[in-house]
Amino acid sequence: MNIGIVGLGLIGGSLGLKLQKLNHTIFGISNNESNKKKAIKRNLANTVSCDLNTLKECSLIILALPIQELIKPSKLLIRSIPENAIVTDVGSIKKPIIDTWENIHPLFVGSHPMAGNEHKGVESGLINLFDKAKWVITPTKRTNSKALEIIKHLIKSLNCDLVETSPETHDQAVAKVSHLPIFLSSSLIQAVNANEQSQILEIAKKLASSGFADTSRVGAGNPQLGLDLAKYNRTHILEALKQFKNYIDEVENFIEGEDWTKLYQRLEDSKKFRLEFL
Amino acid sequence: MNIGIVGLGLIGGSLGLKLQKLNHTIFGISNNESNKKKAIKRNLANTVSCDLNTLKECSLIILALPIQELIKPSKLLIRSIPENAIVTDVGSIKKPIIDTWENIHPLFVGSHPMAGNEHKGVESGLINLFDKAKWVITPTKRTNSKALEIIKHLIKSLNCDLVETSPETHDQAVAKVSHLPIFLSSSLIQAVNANEQSQILEIAKKLASSGFADTSRVGAGNPQLGLDLAKYNRTHILEALKQFKNYIDEVENFIEGEDWTKLYQRLEDSKKFRLEFL
Repeated sequence: MNIGIVGLGLIGGSLGLKLQKLNHTIFGISNNESNKKKAIKRNLANTVSCDLNTLKECSLIILALPIQELIKPSKLLIRSIPENAIVTDVGSIKKPIIDTWENIHPLFVGSHPMAGNEHKGVESGLINLFDKAKWVITPTKRTNSKALEIIKHLIKSLNCDLVETSPETHDQAVAKVSHLPIFLSSSLIQAVNANEQSQILEIAKKLASSGFADTSRVGAGNPQLGLDLAKYNRTHILEALKQFKNYIDEVENFIEGEDWTKLYQRLEDSKKFRLEFL
Repeated sequence: MNIGIVGLGLIGGSLGLKLQKLNHTIFGISNNESNKKKAIKRNLANTVSCDLNTLKECSLIILALPIQELIKPSKLLIRSIPENAIVTDVGSIKKPIIDTWENIHPLFVGSHPMAGNEHKGVESGLINLFDKAKWVITPTKRTNSKALEIIKHLIKSLNCDLVETSPETHDQAVAKVSHLPIFLSSSLIQAVNANEQSQILEIAKKLASSGFADTSRVGAGNPQLGLDLAKYNRTHILEALKQFKNYIDEVENFIEGEDWTKLYQRLEDSKKFRLEFL
Protein backbone atom coordinates (compact mmCIF):
# COMPACT_ATOMS: atom_id res chain seq x y z
CA MET A 1 0.00 0.00 0.00
CA ASN A 2 1.13 3.60 -0.55
CA ILE A 3 1.28 5.03 2.96
CA GLY A 4 1.97 8.67 3.82
CA ILE A 5 3.56 9.55 7.14
CA VAL A 6 3.35 13.20 8.12
CA GLY A 7 6.14 13.89 10.61
CA LEU A 8 9.27 11.70 10.85
CA GLY A 9 10.09 12.02 14.56
CA LEU A 10 10.29 9.10 16.99
CA ILE A 11 6.84 7.67 16.13
CA GLY A 12 6.70 8.62 12.44
CA GLY A 13 10.29 7.56 11.78
CA SER A 14 9.84 4.22 13.56
CA LEU A 15 6.67 3.57 11.53
CA GLY A 16 8.50 4.45 8.32
CA LEU A 17 11.25 1.94 9.03
CA LYS A 18 8.87 -0.84 10.06
CA LEU A 19 6.25 -0.34 7.32
CA GLN A 20 8.90 -0.46 4.59
CA LYS A 21 9.95 -3.86 5.97
CA LEU A 22 6.31 -4.95 5.61
CA ASN A 23 6.55 -4.07 1.89
CA HIS A 24 4.55 -0.87 1.92
CA THR A 25 5.72 2.14 -0.07
CA ILE A 26 6.24 5.01 2.32
CA PHE A 27 5.91 8.69 1.47
CA GLY A 28 7.43 10.61 4.38
CA ILE A 29 6.76 14.29 4.98
CA SER A 30 9.49 16.20 6.75
CA ASN A 31 9.13 19.70 8.22
CA ASN A 32 12.34 21.17 6.77
CA GLU A 33 15.17 20.52 4.33
CA SER A 34 17.72 19.68 7.01
CA ASN A 35 15.49 17.01 8.56
CA LYS A 36 14.59 15.78 5.09
CA LYS A 37 18.27 15.07 4.38
CA LYS A 38 18.66 13.22 7.69
CA ALA A 39 15.48 11.21 7.05
CA ILE A 40 16.75 10.17 3.61
CA LYS A 41 20.11 9.17 5.07
CA ARG A 42 18.34 7.05 7.72
CA ASN A 43 15.98 5.49 5.10
CA LEU A 44 12.92 6.44 7.12
CA ALA A 45 10.75 6.33 3.97
CA ASN A 46 10.98 5.34 0.30
CA THR A 47 10.42 8.98 -0.62
CA VAL A 48 10.98 11.93 1.71
CA SER A 49 9.63 15.34 0.84
CA CYS A 50 8.74 18.66 2.45
CA ASP A 51 5.89 19.02 -0.03
CA LEU A 52 2.54 17.90 1.35
CA ASN A 53 1.30 17.34 -2.22
CA THR A 54 3.26 14.06 -2.14
CA LEU A 55 0.35 12.72 -0.09
CA LYS A 56 -1.78 12.68 -3.25
CA GLU A 57 -0.14 9.29 -4.01
CA CYS A 58 -1.32 7.71 -0.73
CA SER A 59 -4.35 5.58 0.12
CA LEU A 60 -3.53 5.64 3.86
CA ILE A 61 -2.06 8.55 5.81
CA ILE A 62 -0.64 8.53 9.35
CA LEU A 63 -0.44 11.90 11.05
CA ALA A 64 2.58 11.60 13.37
CA LEU A 65 2.52 15.23 14.49
CA PRO A 66 2.64 17.01 17.86
CA ILE A 67 -0.76 17.26 19.63
CA GLN A 68 -1.07 20.99 18.91
CA GLU A 69 -0.69 20.45 15.15
CA LEU A 70 -3.25 17.63 15.24
CA ILE A 71 -5.82 19.75 17.04
CA LYS A 72 -5.17 22.84 14.92
CA PRO A 73 -4.04 21.39 11.59
CA SER A 74 -2.74 23.70 8.88
CA LYS A 75 -5.00 24.42 5.89
CA LEU A 76 -2.19 23.15 3.68
CA LEU A 77 -2.28 19.76 5.42
CA ILE A 78 -6.07 19.54 5.22
CA ARG A 79 -6.06 20.40 1.50
CA SER A 80 -3.36 17.86 0.69
CA ILE A 81 -5.27 14.80 1.97
CA PRO A 82 -6.91 12.86 -0.88
CA GLU A 83 -10.65 12.41 -0.51
CA ASN A 84 -10.44 8.61 -0.55
CA ALA A 85 -7.46 8.22 1.77
CA ILE A 86 -7.92 6.61 5.16
CA VAL A 87 -6.33 8.78 7.85
CA THR A 88 -5.21 8.04 11.40
CA ASP A 89 -3.14 9.88 13.97
CA VAL A 90 -0.84 8.85 16.84
CA GLY A 91 -1.69 11.57 19.37
CA SER A 92 -1.58 10.70 23.07
CA ILE A 93 -4.97 12.28 23.73
CA LYS A 94 -7.94 11.43 21.60
CA LYS A 95 -11.20 13.36 22.04
CA PRO A 96 -10.03 16.85 20.98
CA ILE A 97 -8.16 15.42 17.99
CA ILE A 98 -11.10 13.29 16.87
CA ASP A 99 -13.54 16.17 17.33
CA THR A 100 -11.35 18.18 14.95
CA TRP A 101 -10.67 15.52 12.34
CA GLU A 102 -14.14 13.97 12.10
CA ASN A 103 -15.30 17.34 10.81
CA ILE A 104 -12.45 17.55 8.32
CA HIS A 105 -12.24 14.06 6.88
CA PRO A 106 -14.93 11.31 6.93
CA LEU A 107 -12.36 8.51 6.70
CA PHE A 108 -10.52 9.50 9.89
CA VAL A 109 -9.94 6.91 12.66
CA GLY A 110 -8.25 8.03 15.89
CA SER A 111 -5.48 5.87 17.35
CA HIS A 112 -2.66 5.99 19.90
CA PRO A 113 0.38 3.71 19.99
CA MET A 114 1.58 3.34 23.60
CA ALA A 115 5.24 3.28 22.67
CA GLY A 116 8.04 5.77 23.10
CA ASN A 117 11.23 6.58 24.87
CA GLU A 118 13.02 9.74 26.00
CA HIS A 119 14.28 10.59 22.51
CA LYS A 120 12.65 12.70 19.83
CA GLY A 121 13.31 14.00 16.34
CA VAL A 122 14.37 12.61 13.01
CA GLU A 123 17.37 10.77 14.48
CA SER A 124 15.29 8.79 16.99
CA GLY A 125 13.13 6.33 14.96
CA LEU A 126 13.67 2.64 15.72
CA ILE A 127 12.44 -0.27 13.61
CA ASN A 128 11.32 -2.30 16.66
CA LEU A 129 9.72 0.52 18.68
CA PHE A 130 6.23 -0.98 18.33
CA ASP A 131 7.05 -4.68 18.93
CA LYS A 132 4.40 -5.97 21.35
CA ALA A 133 3.31 -2.43 22.28
CA LYS A 134 -0.30 -1.61 23.09
CA TRP A 135 -1.96 0.38 20.32
CA VAL A 136 -5.31 1.95 21.16
CA ILE A 137 -7.96 2.57 18.55
CA THR A 138 -10.86 4.87 19.44
CA PRO A 139 -13.74 4.67 16.96
CA THR A 140 -16.90 6.73 17.42
CA LYS A 141 -20.43 6.48 16.01
CA ARG A 142 -19.24 8.47 13.02
CA THR A 143 -16.26 6.23 12.19
CA ASN A 144 -16.40 4.59 8.76
CA SER A 145 -16.39 0.81 9.30
CA LYS A 146 -14.21 0.04 6.27
CA ALA A 147 -11.61 2.59 7.41
CA LEU A 148 -11.73 1.11 10.92
CA GLU A 149 -11.05 -2.41 9.61
CA ILE A 150 -8.08 -1.23 7.53
CA ILE A 151 -6.49 0.63 10.45
CA LYS A 152 -7.03 -2.37 12.73
CA HIS A 153 -5.36 -4.61 10.16
CA LEU A 154 -2.42 -2.20 9.90
CA ILE A 155 -1.94 -2.11 13.70
CA LYS A 156 -2.03 -5.90 13.96
CA SER A 157 0.48 -6.22 11.12
CA LEU A 158 2.88 -4.12 13.24
CA ASN A 159 2.88 -6.86 15.92
CA CYS A 160 0.96 -4.59 18.31
CA ASP A 161 -1.61 -5.49 20.93
CA LEU A 162 -4.81 -3.77 19.78
CA VAL A 163 -7.02 -2.14 22.45
CA GLU A 164 -10.37 -0.69 21.38
CA THR A 165 -12.22 1.89 23.47
CA SER A 166 -14.02 5.24 23.20
CA PRO A 167 -12.03 8.50 22.95
CA GLU A 168 -13.48 9.64 26.33
CA THR A 169 -12.53 6.42 28.14
CA HIS A 170 -9.06 6.54 26.61
CA ASP A 171 -8.53 10.11 27.78
CA GLN A 172 -9.74 9.36 31.32
CA ALA A 173 -7.62 6.21 31.59
CA VAL A 174 -4.41 7.86 30.32
CA ALA A 175 -5.02 10.88 32.57
CA LYS A 176 -4.44 8.42 35.42
CA VAL A 177 -1.81 5.97 34.20
CA SER A 178 0.20 8.28 31.93
CA HIS A 179 -0.46 11.96 32.63
CA LEU A 180 -0.87 12.08 36.43
CA PRO A 181 2.55 10.40 36.93
CA ILE A 182 4.23 13.24 35.00
CA PHE A 183 2.99 15.91 37.40
CA LEU A 184 3.70 13.86 40.55
CA SER A 185 7.13 13.03 39.33
CA SER A 186 7.89 16.66 38.47
CA SER A 187 6.68 17.79 41.91
CA LEU A 188 8.88 15.15 43.56
CA ILE A 189 11.92 16.53 41.73
CA GLN A 190 11.00 20.05 42.84
CA ALA A 191 10.51 18.99 46.48
CA VAL A 192 13.82 17.17 46.59
CA ASN A 193 15.62 20.05 44.96
CA ALA A 194 14.02 22.73 47.15
CA ASN A 195 16.09 22.18 50.21
CA GLU A 196 17.05 25.36 51.97
CA GLN A 197 20.06 23.65 53.58
CA SER A 198 22.71 23.14 50.93
CA GLN A 199 24.36 20.36 52.94
CA ILE A 200 21.21 18.22 52.86
CA LEU A 201 20.74 18.92 49.16
CA GLU A 202 24.32 17.89 48.46
CA ILE A 203 23.93 14.59 50.34
CA ALA A 204 20.50 14.01 48.74
CA LYS A 205 22.16 14.30 45.32
CA LYS A 206 24.78 11.76 46.33
CA LEU A 207 22.25 9.33 47.79
CA ALA A 208 19.64 9.47 45.01
CA SER A 209 19.56 5.94 43.64
CA SER A 210 17.27 3.66 41.62
CA GLY A 211 14.12 4.48 43.64
CA PHE A 212 14.45 8.20 42.97
CA ALA A 213 15.57 7.56 39.38
CA ASP A 214 12.46 5.54 38.57
CA THR A 215 9.95 7.70 40.43
CA SER A 216 11.32 10.92 38.90
CA ARG A 217 11.84 9.71 35.31
CA VAL A 218 8.59 10.86 33.68
CA GLY A 219 8.77 14.22 35.49
CA ALA A 220 11.83 15.06 33.42
CA GLY A 221 10.39 14.31 29.99
CA ASN A 222 9.65 16.67 27.11
CA PRO A 223 8.11 19.82 28.72
CA GLN A 224 6.11 20.61 25.57
CA LEU A 225 4.40 17.21 25.70
CA GLY A 226 3.54 17.64 29.40
CA LEU A 227 2.12 21.07 28.62
CA ASP A 228 0.02 19.81 25.69
CA LEU A 229 -1.40 16.97 27.79
CA ALA A 230 -2.36 19.43 30.53
CA LYS A 231 -3.94 21.78 27.99
CA TYR A 232 -5.94 19.22 26.06
CA ASN A 233 -6.73 16.65 28.75
CA ARG A 234 -7.14 19.30 31.44
CA THR A 235 -10.42 18.18 33.05
CA HIS A 236 -9.43 14.54 33.40
CA ILE A 237 -5.95 15.41 34.71
CA LEU A 238 -7.46 17.76 37.30
CA GLU A 239 -9.82 14.97 38.43
CA ALA A 240 -6.92 12.52 38.68
CA LEU A 241 -4.85 15.06 40.65
CA LYS A 242 -7.74 15.55 43.06
CA GLN A 243 -8.05 11.81 43.68
CA PHE A 244 -4.31 11.48 44.14
CA LYS A 245 -4.29 14.35 46.65
CA ASN A 246 -6.97 12.62 48.72
CA TYR A 247 -4.76 9.55 49.02
CA ILE A 248 -1.60 11.47 49.82
CA ASP A 249 -3.54 13.42 52.48
CA GLU A 250 -4.69 10.13 54.00
CA VAL A 251 -1.14 8.79 54.10
CA GLU A 252 0.02 12.03 55.72
CA ASN A 253 -2.74 11.66 58.32
CA PHE A 254 -1.77 8.06 59.07
CA ILE A 255 1.86 9.11 59.64
CA GLU A 256 0.96 12.30 61.53
CA GLY A 257 -1.50 10.38 63.75
CA GLU A 258 0.81 7.35 64.02
CA ASP A 259 -1.93 5.08 62.75
CA TRP A 260 0.47 2.30 61.83
CA THR A 261 -2.22 -0.33 61.24
CA LYS A 262 -3.84 1.77 58.53
CA LEU A 263 -0.50 2.74 56.99
CA TYR A 264 0.55 -0.91 56.79
CA GLN A 265 -2.78 -1.83 55.21
CA ARG A 266 -2.37 0.97 52.65
CA LEU A 267 1.12 -0.19 51.65
CA GLU A 268 -0.03 -3.78 51.42
CA ASP A 269 -3.02 -2.76 49.24
CA SER A 270 -0.74 -0.78 46.92
CA LYS A 271 1.53 -3.77 46.48
CA LYS A 272 -1.49 -5.96 45.64
CA PHE A 273 -3.17 -3.43 43.32
CA ARG A 274 -0.02 -2.83 41.29
CA LEU A 275 0.19 -6.51 40.41
CA GLU A 276 -3.20 -6.18 38.70
CA PHE A 277 -1.77 -3.47 36.45
CA LEU A 278 1.61 -4.78 35.42
CA MET B 1 39.25 -11.21 59.39
CA ASN B 2 36.56 -13.13 61.29
CA ILE B 3 33.36 -11.27 60.41
CA GLY B 4 29.94 -11.96 61.94
CA ILE B 5 26.81 -11.18 59.95
CA VAL B 6 23.60 -11.13 61.95
CA GLY B 7 20.73 -11.72 59.53
CA LEU B 8 21.20 -13.43 56.15
CA GLY B 9 18.51 -11.71 54.07
CA LEU B 10 19.16 -9.70 50.92
CA ILE B 11 21.82 -7.43 52.48
CA GLY B 12 23.36 -9.89 54.95
CA GLY B 13 23.39 -12.74 52.44
CA SER B 14 24.96 -10.60 49.71
CA LEU B 15 27.63 -9.44 52.15
CA GLY B 16 28.33 -13.04 53.17
CA LEU B 17 28.88 -14.09 49.57
CA LYS B 18 31.09 -11.12 48.72
CA LEU B 19 33.17 -11.04 51.93
CA GLN B 20 34.04 -14.74 51.58
CA LYS B 21 35.40 -13.93 48.10
CA LEU B 22 37.57 -11.26 49.75
CA ASN B 23 39.05 -14.01 51.95
CA HIS B 24 37.31 -13.17 55.20
CA THR B 25 35.89 -15.91 57.38
CA ILE B 26 32.18 -15.34 57.77
CA PHE B 27 30.07 -16.40 60.74
CA GLY B 28 26.45 -16.02 59.65
CA ILE B 29 23.58 -15.89 62.13
CA SER B 30 20.24 -17.16 60.89
CA ASN B 31 16.90 -16.63 62.63
CA ASN B 32 15.66 -20.23 62.38
CA GLU B 33 16.69 -23.76 61.43
CA SER B 34 14.90 -23.74 58.08
CA ASN B 35 16.66 -20.55 56.95
CA LYS B 36 19.93 -21.90 58.37
CA LYS B 37 19.69 -24.91 56.03
CA LYS B 38 18.97 -22.69 53.04
CA ALA B 39 21.85 -20.36 53.95
CA ILE B 40 24.25 -23.30 54.17
CA LYS B 41 23.04 -24.62 50.82
CA ARG B 42 23.62 -21.19 49.25
CA ASN B 43 27.07 -20.83 50.90
CA LEU B 44 26.14 -17.46 52.39
CA ALA B 45 28.79 -17.87 55.12
CA ASN B 46 31.63 -20.20 56.11
CA THR B 47 29.66 -21.11 59.23
CA VAL B 48 25.92 -20.64 59.66
CA SER B 49 24.35 -20.90 63.09
CA CYS B 50 21.22 -19.86 64.97
CA ASP B 51 23.34 -19.44 68.10
CA LEU B 52 24.42 -15.84 68.73
CA ASN B 53 27.33 -17.11 70.83
CA THR B 54 29.10 -17.85 67.53
CA LEU B 55 29.78 -14.10 67.40
CA LYS B 56 32.37 -14.55 70.17
CA GLU B 57 34.80 -15.57 67.38
CA CYS B 58 34.40 -12.27 65.48
CA SER B 59 36.41 -9.06 65.52
CA LEU B 60 33.90 -7.29 63.25
CA ILE B 61 30.12 -7.69 63.30
CA ILE B 62 27.60 -6.46 60.75
CA LEU B 63 24.01 -6.18 61.98
CA ALA B 64 21.91 -6.87 58.87
CA LEU B 65 18.57 -6.84 60.68
CA PRO B 66 15.22 -5.09 60.12
CA ILE B 67 15.06 -1.52 61.47
CA GLN B 68 12.82 -2.51 64.39
CA GLU B 69 15.35 -5.08 65.63
CA LEU B 70 18.18 -2.58 65.32
CA ILE B 71 16.35 0.05 67.35
CA LYS B 72 15.13 -2.42 69.95
CA PRO B 73 17.84 -5.11 69.96
CA SER B 74 17.31 -8.28 71.98
CA LYS B 75 19.27 -8.69 75.23
CA LEU B 76 20.65 -11.91 73.79
CA LEU B 77 22.15 -10.05 70.84
CA ILE B 78 23.61 -7.34 73.04
CA ARG B 79 25.19 -9.89 75.38
CA SER B 80 26.70 -11.90 72.53
CA ILE B 81 28.79 -9.07 71.10
CA PRO B 82 32.46 -9.28 72.21
CA GLU B 83 33.75 -6.19 73.98
CA ASN B 84 36.51 -5.61 71.42
CA ALA B 85 34.48 -6.25 68.29
CA ILE B 86 33.79 -3.40 65.89
CA VAL B 87 30.10 -3.26 65.04
CA THR B 88 28.20 -1.66 62.18
CA ASP B 89 24.63 -1.91 60.89
CA VAL B 90 22.98 -1.54 57.48
CA GLY B 91 19.72 0.17 58.51
CA SER B 92 18.15 2.64 56.11
CA ILE B 93 17.64 5.23 58.82
CA LYS B 94 20.47 6.25 61.08
CA LYS B 95 19.78 8.54 64.03
CA PRO B 96 17.47 6.28 66.10
CA ILE B 97 19.73 3.28 65.50
CA ILE B 98 22.88 5.16 66.43
CA ASP B 99 21.24 6.67 69.52
CA THR B 100 20.50 3.11 70.65
CA TRP B 101 23.81 1.48 69.80
CA GLU B 102 26.18 4.20 70.98
CA ASN B 103 24.82 3.53 74.45
CA ILE B 104 25.26 -0.23 74.08
CA HIS B 105 28.64 -0.59 72.43
CA PRO B 106 31.47 1.98 72.24
CA LEU B 107 32.88 0.51 69.02
CA PHE B 108 29.68 1.00 67.02
CA VAL B 109 29.75 2.87 63.68
CA GLY B 110 26.47 3.48 61.83
CA SER B 111 26.33 2.81 58.10
CA HIS B 112 23.85 2.35 55.27
CA PRO B 113 24.52 0.62 51.95
CA MET B 114 22.27 2.15 49.25
CA ALA B 115 21.69 -1.15 47.47
CA GLY B 116 18.71 -3.42 47.18
CA ASN B 117 16.04 -4.81 44.94
CA GLU B 118 12.47 -6.04 45.35
CA HIS B 119 13.52 -9.38 46.83
CA LYS B 120 14.07 -10.33 50.45
CA GLY B 121 14.95 -13.33 52.56
CA VAL B 122 17.63 -15.97 52.64
CA GLU B 123 17.16 -16.85 48.96
CA SER B 124 17.80 -13.31 47.73
CA GLY B 125 21.50 -12.54 48.42
CA LEU B 126 23.62 -11.69 45.36
CA ILE B 127 27.42 -11.57 45.25
CA ASN B 128 27.47 -8.37 43.15
CA LEU B 129 24.69 -6.44 44.95
CA PHE B 130 27.12 -3.81 46.23
CA ASP B 131 29.22 -3.27 43.11
CA LYS B 132 29.59 0.52 42.68
CA ALA B 133 26.76 1.19 45.16
CA LYS B 134 26.82 4.20 47.47
CA TRP B 135 27.51 3.25 51.06
CA VAL B 136 26.90 5.94 53.65
CA ILE B 137 28.85 6.09 56.89
CA THR B 138 27.52 8.34 59.66
CA PRO B 139 30.05 8.91 62.45
CA THR B 140 29.24 11.12 65.44
CA LYS B 141 31.38 12.88 68.06
CA ARG B 142 31.30 9.66 70.06
CA THR B 143 32.52 7.38 67.24
CA ASN B 144 35.81 5.61 67.94
CA SER B 145 38.29 6.72 65.26
CA LYS B 146 39.98 3.31 64.92
CA ALA B 147 36.60 1.60 64.44
CA LEU B 148 35.64 4.26 61.87
CA GLU B 149 38.81 3.62 59.84
CA ILE B 150 38.23 -0.13 59.82
CA ILE B 151 34.60 0.19 58.67
CA LYS B 152 35.66 2.67 55.95
CA HIS B 153 38.31 0.24 54.76
CA LEU B 154 35.75 -2.59 54.68
CA ILE B 155 33.29 -0.53 52.62
CA LYS B 156 35.96 0.48 50.12
CA SER B 157 37.09 -3.14 49.78
CA LEU B 158 33.51 -3.97 48.67
CA ASN B 159 33.94 -1.69 45.62
CA CYS B 160 31.45 0.80 47.08
CA ASP B 161 31.37 4.57 46.79
CA LEU B 162 31.79 5.85 50.36
CA VAL B 163 29.71 8.87 51.43
CA GLU B 164 30.31 10.36 54.88
CA THR B 165 27.75 12.54 56.62
CA SER B 166 25.99 13.02 59.96
CA PRO B 167 23.08 10.73 60.99
CA GLU B 168 20.68 13.72 60.94
CA THR B 169 21.70 14.85 57.45
CA HIS B 170 21.45 11.28 56.20
CA ASP B 171 17.93 10.90 57.60
CA GLN B 172 16.75 14.22 56.12
CA ALA B 173 18.26 13.46 52.71
CA VAL B 174 16.82 9.93 52.46
CA ALA B 175 13.42 11.20 53.66
CA LYS B 176 13.37 13.10 50.36
CA VAL B 177 15.10 10.87 47.83
CA SER B 178 14.12 7.44 49.20
CA HIS B 179 11.18 7.62 51.60
CA LEU B 180 8.96 10.34 50.07
CA PRO B 181 8.87 8.45 46.71
CA ILE B 182 7.39 5.38 48.46
CA PHE B 183 4.36 7.29 49.74
CA LEU B 184 3.78 9.19 46.46
CA SER B 185 4.09 6.04 44.48
CA SER B 186 1.68 4.17 46.76
CA SER B 187 -0.85 7.04 46.52
CA LEU B 188 -0.54 6.99 42.73
CA ILE B 189 -1.40 3.28 42.68
CA GLN B 190 -4.40 3.95 44.93
CA ALA B 191 -5.62 6.85 42.78
CA VAL B 192 -5.35 4.85 39.58
CA ASN B 193 -7.08 1.87 41.14
CA ALA B 194 -9.87 3.92 42.72
CA ASN B 195 -11.94 4.44 39.65
CA GLU B 196 -15.62 4.19 40.26
CA GLN B 197 -16.25 3.34 36.60
CA SER B 198 -15.12 -0.21 35.99
CA GLN B 199 -14.76 0.43 32.25
CA ILE B 200 -12.13 3.16 32.81
CA LEU B 201 -10.30 1.00 35.33
CA GLU B 202 -10.24 -1.90 32.89
CA ILE B 203 -8.79 0.26 30.09
CA ALA B 204 -6.34 1.91 32.53
CA LYS B 205 -5.02 -1.57 33.41
CA LYS B 206 -4.55 -2.35 29.73
CA LEU B 207 -2.84 0.97 28.98
CA ALA B 208 -0.50 1.10 31.98
CA SER B 209 2.98 1.02 30.44
CA SER B 210 6.58 1.92 31.33
CA GLY B 211 5.72 5.37 32.75
CA PHE B 212 3.27 3.92 35.25
CA ALA B 213 5.55 0.93 35.92
CA ASP B 214 8.47 3.15 36.89
CA THR B 215 6.51 5.75 38.86
CA SER B 216 4.63 3.09 40.85
CA ARG B 217 7.51 0.67 41.51
CA VAL B 218 8.63 1.80 44.97
CA GLY B 219 5.00 2.14 46.12
CA ALA B 220 4.67 -1.63 45.85
CA GLY B 221 7.71 -2.59 47.90
CA ASN B 222 7.90 -4.36 51.26
CA PRO B 223 5.06 -2.86 53.41
CA GLN B 224 6.97 -3.52 56.65
CA LEU B 225 9.94 -1.47 55.43
CA GLY B 226 7.68 1.43 54.42
CA LEU B 227 6.03 1.28 57.83
CA ASP B 228 9.36 1.24 59.71
CA LEU B 229 10.64 4.22 57.72
CA ALA B 230 7.47 6.16 58.52
CA LYS B 231 7.74 5.24 62.19
CA TYR B 232 11.39 6.02 62.70
CA ASN B 233 11.94 8.85 60.23
CA ARG B 234 8.50 10.33 60.84
CA THR B 235 9.37 14.02 61.30
CA HIS B 236 11.56 14.26 58.22
CA ILE B 237 9.07 12.34 56.07
CA LEU B 238 6.23 14.63 57.21
CA GLU B 239 8.38 17.65 56.27
CA ALA B 240 9.14 16.18 52.86
CA LEU B 241 5.44 15.37 52.28
CA LYS B 242 4.53 18.96 53.15
CA GLN B 243 7.04 20.35 50.65
CA PHE B 244 5.86 17.93 47.97
CA LYS B 245 2.22 18.92 48.57
CA ASN B 246 3.09 22.60 48.05
CA TYR B 247 4.52 21.78 44.63
CA ILE B 248 1.64 19.54 43.58
CA ASP B 249 -0.79 22.28 44.67
CA GLU B 250 1.11 24.78 42.52
CA VAL B 251 0.95 22.48 39.51
CA GLU B 252 -2.78 21.99 40.09
CA ASN B 253 -3.21 25.76 40.23
CA PHE B 254 -1.26 26.27 36.99
CA ILE B 255 -3.49 23.71 35.21
CA GLU B 256 -6.72 24.93 36.87
CA GLY B 257 -5.85 28.57 36.02
CA GLU B 258 -4.48 27.64 32.58
CA ASP B 259 -1.18 29.34 33.38
CA TRP B 260 0.69 27.53 30.62
CA THR B 261 3.81 29.70 30.84
CA LYS B 262 4.37 28.76 34.47
CA LEU B 263 3.53 25.09 33.86
CA TYR B 264 6.04 24.93 30.99
CA GLN B 265 8.68 26.58 33.17
CA ARG B 266 8.00 24.09 35.96
CA LEU B 267 8.39 21.09 33.64
CA GLU B 268 11.55 22.54 32.13
CA ASP B 269 13.00 23.15 35.62
CA SER B 270 12.21 19.58 36.67
CA LYS B 271 14.01 18.22 33.62
CA LYS B 272 17.04 20.38 34.44
CA PHE B 273 17.08 19.62 38.19
CA ARG B 274 16.88 15.87 37.68
CA LEU B 275 20.07 15.94 35.63
CA GLU B 276 21.87 17.29 38.71
CA PHE B 277 20.79 14.24 40.69
CA LEU B 278 21.35 11.35 38.34
